[in-house]
Amino acid sequence: MSKTKQDIEGKQADFELSANSYGKSQVRISKIIRDGARHEIKEMAVSVKLRGDFKDTYSTGSNAKVVATDSIKNTVYAIAAEHPLGEIESFALTLAKHFLSYEQVEAAEIDITQDFWKRISHNGREHEHSFVKGGDEKRLTRVVHDRKGTTIESGITDLYVLKTTASEFFGFVRDKYTTLQDVNDRIFATAIEARWFFDEVKEEQPRDYNNIFDSNKKTLLEVFASHHSLSVQQTLYVMGEELLKLDDTIAEVKITMPNRHRIPFNVEPFGLKNQNEIFVTTDEPYGLIEGVVRRKV
Amino acid sequence: MSKTKQDIEGKQADFELSANSYGKSQVRISKIIRDGARHEIKEMAVSVKLRGDFKDTYSTGSNAKVVATDSIKNTVYAIAAEHPLGEIESFALTLAKHFLSYEQVEAAEIDITQDFWKRISHNGREHEHSFVKGGDEKRLTRVVHDRKGTTIESGITDLYVLKTTASEFFGFVRDKYTTLQDVNDRIFATAIEARWFFDEVKEEQPRDYNNIFDSNKKTLLEVFASHHSLSVQQTLYVMGEELLKLDDTIAEVKITMPNRHRIPFNVEPFGLKNQNEIFVTTDEPYGLIEGVVRRKV
Amino acid sequence: MSKTKQDIEGKQADFELSANSYGKSQVRISKIIRDGARHEIKEMAVSVKLRGDFKDTYSTGSNAKVVATDSIKNTVYAIAAEHPLGEIESFALTLAKHFLSYEQVEAAEIDITQDFWKRISHNGREHEHSFVKGGDEKRLTRVVHDRKGTTIESGITDLYVLKTTASEFFGFVRDKYTTLQDVNDRIFATAIEARWFFDEVKEEQPRDYNNIFDSNKKTLLEVFASHHSLSVQQTLYVMGEELLKLDDTIAEVKITMPNRHRIPFNVEPFGLKNQNEIFVTTDEPYGLIEGVVRRKV
Amino acid sequence: MSKTKQDIEGKQADFELSANSYGKSQVRISKIIRDGARHEIKEMAVSVKLRGDFKDTYSTGSNAKVVATDSIKNTVYAIAAEHPLGEIESFALTLAKHFLSYEQVEAAEIDITQDFWKRISHNGREHEHSFVKGGDEKRLTRVVHDRKGTTIESGITDLYVLKTTASEFFGFVRDKYTTLQDVNDRIFATAIEARWFFDEVKEEQPRDYNNIFDSNKKTLLEVFASHHSLSVQQTLYVMGEELLKLDDTIAEVKITMPNRHRIPFNVEPFGLKNQNEIFVTTDEPYGLIEGVVRRKV
Repeated sequence: MSKTKQDIEGKQADFELSANSYGKSQVRISKIIRDGARHEIKEMAVSVKLRGDFKDTYSTGSNAKVVATDSIKNTVYAIAAEHPLGEIESFALTLAKHFLSYEQVEAAEIDITQDFWKRISHNGREHEHSFVKGGDEKRLTRVVHDRKGTTIESGITDLYVLKTTASEFFGFVRDKYTTLQDVNDRIFATAIEARWFFDEVKEEQPRDYNNIFDSNKKTLLEVFASHHSLSVQQTLYVMGEELLKLDDTIAEVKITMPNRHRIPFNVEPFGLKNQNEIFVTTDEPYGLIEGVVRRKV
Repeated sequence: MSKTKQDIEGKQADFELSANSYGKSQVRISKIIRDGARHEIKEMAVSVKLRGDFKDTYSTGSNAKVVATDSIKNTVYAIAAEHPLGEIESFALTLAKHFLSYEQVEAAEIDITQDFWKRISHNGREHEHSFVKGGDEKRLTRVVHDRKGTTIESGITDLYVLKTTASEFFGFVRDKYTTLQDVNDRIFATAIEARWFFDEVKEEQPRDYNNIFDSNKKTLLEVFASHHSLSVQQTLYVMGEELLKLDDTIAEVKITMPNRHRIPFNVEPFGLKNQNEIFVTTDEPYGLIEGVVRRKV
Repeated sequence: MSKTKQDIEGKQADFELSANSYGKSQVRISKIIRDGARHEIKEMAVSVKLRGDFKDTYSTGSNAKVVATDSIKNTVYAIAAEHPLGEIESFALTLAKHFLSYEQVEAAEIDITQDFWKRISHNGREHEHSFVKGGDEKRLTRVVHDRKGTTIESGITDLYVLKTTASEFFGFVRDKYTTLQDVNDRIFATAIEARWFFDEVKEEQPRDYNNIFDSNKKTLLEVFASHHSLSVQQTLYVMGEELLKLDDTIAEVKITMPNRHRIPFNVEPFGLKNQNEIFVTTDEPYGLIEGVVRRKV
Repeated sequence: MSKTKQDIEGKQADFELSANSYGKSQVRISKIIRDGARHEIKEMAVSVKLRGDFKDTYSTGSNAKVVATDSIKNTVYAIAAEHPLGEIESFALTLAKHFLSYEQVEAAEIDITQDFWKRISHNGREHEHSFVKGGDEKRLTRVVHDRKGTTIESGITDLYVLKTTASEFFGFVRDKYTTLQDVNDRIFATAIEARWFFDEVKEEQPRDYNNIFDSNKKTLLEVFASHHSLSVQQTLYVMGEELLKLDDTIAEVKITMPNRHRIPFNVEPFGLKNQNEIFVTTDEPYGLIEGVVRRKV
């Protein structure tokens, strides 16, 4: 029940900060890596979140323990200048460890998404310094590092795929709110987001994150292409299993697949025969299917 | 360490689904409510997520327990037709309870965001059936309902505010990565997102969610306007406190405030005197400040 | 018919540049204007396009006549520092004239869109330095200035409006591709863009652009609210007429109104009676209606 | 000078409609084309604008000559069902001609943008019915057909490219607003939009639009990769020339290239040596360079 402002003055001491974080988002970096005439371009957006002993700035505005978000931004560029950027996971981990060099920081969470550039083909060869955007998909990682340990997840997002057949959906609940008919041949279009969560990091056991990414992306595409789907959920689960089979340091895989519906357009009012050919491409509303697949313990 | 595909076949039984959800997102509804010649328009986007006994569709593609996302969409419109839509919280709760009428559903999570339309002023009076968009901000709610109980959070997002003074930022950590100077007069521009989490719902004690929303929005604006800010964090914390003071059925308030930087543009190279007047408006990178304020227990 | 590359070498001299322009887009400015304790905030995005004697840089890469787009950006900020920014039209004209001080520039085209900030209400009064975003709509101007003269257009865009009745659409062409029924009561929702084109500028006759803008915005809203619409076109035309009536230095008004359809959702399959209450809010596809209204000569 | 409303009543007859158009935008189509087990997917967004004798609906609301935008949408789907969709140019032309079968239509303008889907590679072969999104770039066409003739333009947009060297910018105008230094090695990043305008269509001389598109896209990429650029303008002009050389039925090429700046980040304050390696990726402001290249007459 609401109270008037007068009823409740002087109660400030009754409240407390229960959680806090701050940082800098969307720090966008381009780095050229030169190997003689052959260049690579790395482009990514970095977000940093810090948690720790920052209550003073909330309660009194004293910023003595606050690393300014402008300094966080500077740090990201400065460390990127020295880091080879071979793998976003390694860069994120280096950043996270750096931020724990401030004793007031209890945990650092680093998110990186990387765009793809592929070499332009020129005279039948890959060009040494010219690139075309690789597609909508992005590689991502999230590293969370605190005084107790480190968790690393990696993944891919915005991987747009579509198949024109081998997708069915039938036998679902049929009640007063059901108008959808069973369908044995539908378009299946989605934007895959898959995140794989690694077992706890042990320093002595480095991983080849690039290779894992490439394998997982390839596997996601192959499962999507070849799986005869009875539901989005079923295809999602097979994807999760296949990723877990590929690398036994992955503990868990989370996959999200919006169902970007292509809705049959009824051409019969115009004297045409419906041949399951013409669809309305829609963005919303969309089905949203999520699942986490893990190893049994 | 990676394994070859041959090493790992036949291990399917080693995996399991550890979490799942599915539903329909961005079901957009417009409803006219007529009181004689005076009309109201309600526009909102509804997202439904269901969790429960849906393992079969993941493992075998059997959809016998699956309520199709198309049927979920139909249900949202059908229930909206019968519901007065006076408060999005009440509509979300009605939807959530409906979906638990399916025994395989263990929990329903309903997210609603509502756009604002305000009446057009015509001949000095509010028009009865014509509206202009109220602004960028949206009202939101999330209701999670399961077999044990119900949690309700409400809030506002995209509330863009800016003040031209009474904002300082000084005394922060100064080290090798610091280039920002102390500043005693800066623009403070942000897009407030505030979410208030209610105590557990008791049927016998209805709340006036509309009134709470209006009071909280007003209070957020007033604190932003009048608070002399030494850090975004400090202003955020005062906002949280003030919302908690207004209604003692709110247990906790989470506020997120991106710092949408306006960066002084140096006009001195052009023979002009810097008078703290001209700024570059930026979207990224942005500081991101979050905090949760609660009652002490 | 296509030719092989071999057929066509050496023909470079056969081609010429027929049109060119260059400039800087989305130069975003925030300016504080202080009148004692009372501040104003002006936020706008400026785009500059120059046309002129720039063939050399296209044909040989010689940039001797090119004003770098970075310098264009500097110029916009520097001139903004000195200009009162009372009206975007005046600022655009000042910029345009500046760029013609370069003899190689034949024409400058300046586009400005301005965001709205309104004062936060605090203790029943408008706050002196704190603001909340005014809405989605933007004020705009385009000034084109060349050696012969100046044209000025002003306008508003993204003015979202909706009415729940007093909109009909019937008696349209009915043929084999028609499935829409005549409708006597529909939702009319649109995002008005209106641009008014002034007569040729005469220095001795200044205009009150702010007042014209306010009058025109008010009139657009009032016509939308009060006009009984038989088609989007009809409402558009009345809007154009009313703006022309208000100011006789406006030669022509161009209005664009997308028809943001609210499509009735059929609730009858769910045992409910259709009461023209429940609609699907859609963004696409959308009808797009344009018209230019002018004075008869 | 403004007039009061009273001064100007009764002057309605002084105004007239000087231009008008209407239509349907963003009609999104997915079509499956089946050749046995091998499927193709075509996805595109179609916009239709009609001009003609539509004054009545503006002046009186009489819709007797209006083809409803809903019927326009139906027509697009119905004709898509019968059309092979081998080339968007051919489909656009078919649509345009259809709309001129209404005698009140004087001109039809059809815009189509097509997304790219490429086959997923599976077991070393292209999959027969599964696809991954090909990239950001879109193919486009605009066909304008009236009682006198037809114009066809085709093109590509959102072709994101970047090169890490072989781009200079020096010798530009240096004056009081110039702070940019001459640069002999910069990143050149842009999103190419190229439109080629065909000579007047003659029915007896069909073109292979798909082949022209493929050649032009390849040529744009190759010129971008291999041209040593002294200005964006210079590279643009070479692109235009090369496209004109490839096909002598193209009369004119219009190219637009925003300069998506990568701005060197100064790492020297952090004790690091600047090696032209680390850049801030920016979206705005951006240089905008346009040019039209044509055959000499």
